[in-house]
Amino acid sequence: MKKIKIVETASFVPQKIVTNDDLSQIMDTSDEWIKTRTGIKQRHISIGENTSALCLHVAQKLLEKSGWEADSIDLILVATMSPDSYTPATAALVQGKLNARNALAFDISAACSGFIYGLKVAEKFLQQGSTKRIMLIGGEVLSKVIDWSDRTSAVLFGDGAAGVLLESQVTGDSDFLGASLHTFGEFGDKLEAGKTTAISSFPNLSEHHIKAFSMSGRDVYTFATHRVPESIVQAVKTAGLSLEEIDYFVLHQANSRIVKQIAKKLAQPLAKFPMNIAEYGNTSAASVPLLLDELIAQGKIKRGAKIALSGFGGGLTVGTQVIIY
Amino acid sequence: MKKIKIVETASFVPQKIVTNDDLSQIMDTSDEWIKTRTGIKQRHISIGENTSALCLHVAQKLLEKSGWEADSIDLILVATMSPDSYTPATAALVQGKLNARNALAFDISAACSGFIYGLKVAEKFLQQGSTKRIMLIGGEVLSKVIDWSDRTSAVLFGDGAAGVLLESQVTGDSDFLGASLHTFGEFGDKLEAGKTTAISSFPNLSEHHIKAFSMSGRDVYTFATHRVPESIVQAVKTAGLSLEEIDYFVLHQANSRIVKQIAKKLAQPLAKFPMNIAEYGNTSAASVPLLLDELIAQGKIKRGAKIALSGFGGGLTVGTQVIIY
Repeated sequence: MKKIKIVETASFVPQKIVTNDDLSQIMDTSDEWIKTRTGIKQRHISIGENTSALCLHVAQKLLEKSGWEADSIDLILVATMSPDSYTPATAALVQGKLNARNALAFDISAACSGFIYGLKVAEKFLQQGSTKRIMLIGGEVLSKVIDWSDRTSAVLFGDGAAGVLLESQVTGDSDFLGASLHTFGEFGDKLEAGKTTAISSFPNLSEHHIKAFSMSGRDVYTFATHRVPESIVQAVKTAGLSLEEIDYFVLHQANSRIVKQIAKKLAQPLAKFPMNIAEYGNTSAASVPLLLDELIAQGKIKRGAKIALSGFGGGLTVGTQVIIY
Repeated sequence: MKKIKIVETASFVPQKIVTNDDLSQIMDTSDEWIKTRTGIKQRHISIGENTSALCLHVAQKLLEKSGWEADSIDLILVATMSPDSYTPATAALVQGKLNARNALAFDISAACSGFIYGLKVAEKFLQQGSTKRIMLIGGEVLSKVIDWSDRTSAVLFGDGAAGVLLESQVTGDSDFLGASLHTFGEFGDKLEAGKTTAISSFPNLSEHHIKAFSMSGRDVYTFATHRVPESIVQAVKTAGLSLEEIDYFVLHQANSRIVKQIAKKLAQPLAKFPMNIAEYGNTSAASVPLLLDELIAQGKIKRGAKIALSGFGGGLTVGTQVIIY
């Protein structure tokens, strides 16, 4: 069974910043209200660039940083819940624009756990067979499905993309140490976005609508603060490590209160749970690699660090991958 | 490396049938025009049941036919380009409704090649590791993204779902003999559906639109009649077989002319290329397993038959999996 190396990380967020004060101009909310309840101060919002465009920026950065040629990539995976289209897949658009002519490309839909689910798919492709190099990107333009008149959900989300290059090696140790992933589809209706209706689709429908975000915040909070600690404990155990040996818990940035509660449940110091939600909001599948890339760029995460990457959200889904960077 | 067995197949289509004559009542077309150019006589259209509902019917049939318990399934994959929602994933909804509480669930987006791409993902999960049982379903309610005023595309598509149960075994031969999959994202704009726009998403957008099907029929025809034969030849070669040894070529049902042209290019008798497009139209990710299940039910495909399953379409994507049933 071949070993998996995490070769490079990169991220990209759109230039346009929407602050809490900006939002208070168009809806009944305030900087104080949003900050206290979510930890969010601002978010980046794409004006004109769709998900594949954000992912392409990340893809190009990944190639620049690694020196890899586009045509050396065997598989491009995009984890997204806000694809450009139902077809083509966002990964296919990235593959085409990148001229990665030898890469198979498809999207994975697992919402805020998408990047972690993508790591699992990537692992399976790399462990045996001919796939040597994978580009995995989590990318979202969630602003496409925000209802800017709904103050309970509109304040939470932001746009962005981030990803990793993974490579299989015959020798050495794997950077993937252990994982735990679960799906709880019975709670699917607790967090919905982009919902369609099949009713009366023939022959009268000529306009095709999708619904904006709708979530039961309390249920998602309860889910996350129970299932994420379980997932982390299980993944860390599978990795043969203790929680104390984990240097950083890089969690999906949905709400700073959730992160704090998870830290408390795991009885680990909050300093091991870095956050960047204040700047970006919840960027779904992009949030884990966005935070990972930022911590690496800041020099906080160095080679050899043991990290638990954890995603959770729509599905409902949860997933933790323990890595050594 | 563990072996993969194809345990069971099943399919489901909505009851409502829309004939070419029905369509000629609402658009400027005719039965003769549609039949001559596409081979399609009718299609099944969902009235009220979304993609996850069609997939759930298939999932339940698969369990009934196999005698498997829902909680014995490790992974549920849904290949779709017409998901119920951006989140939850359609696979998560099926997992929840099926009470398959031990199954991981996520969607794969690769349009009309989605089922073949899904077979590849399933293969990777089954070949090593702890995943033993996988349910893979291709399901579509394409009528959600049909523009019933566009006679060039509205006549082509139908709704349906079909899938397989796959199991890993330590001994015996694998039912998966060889494959060839490719993505051509540079032609992404030749076939689009459900397209979103990121322009002006903040702060004015309160309605969320997606675009209906748009395709360049000539380009897709050229693509399919070149790339599918290549893919089949490559996959059959990888399987260590000759084209003559393949009993049936079960191709994505996009257009009977495409199938005939592929048969001609491969210099194989048209009798080896079964079709059911007349009854169902193009059901995207559902079409290959729908035809496979039908041929098995009819007794035409028996255990031991060697079959090339081939999908192609949006992405643009193409993929062939050679199996022994």
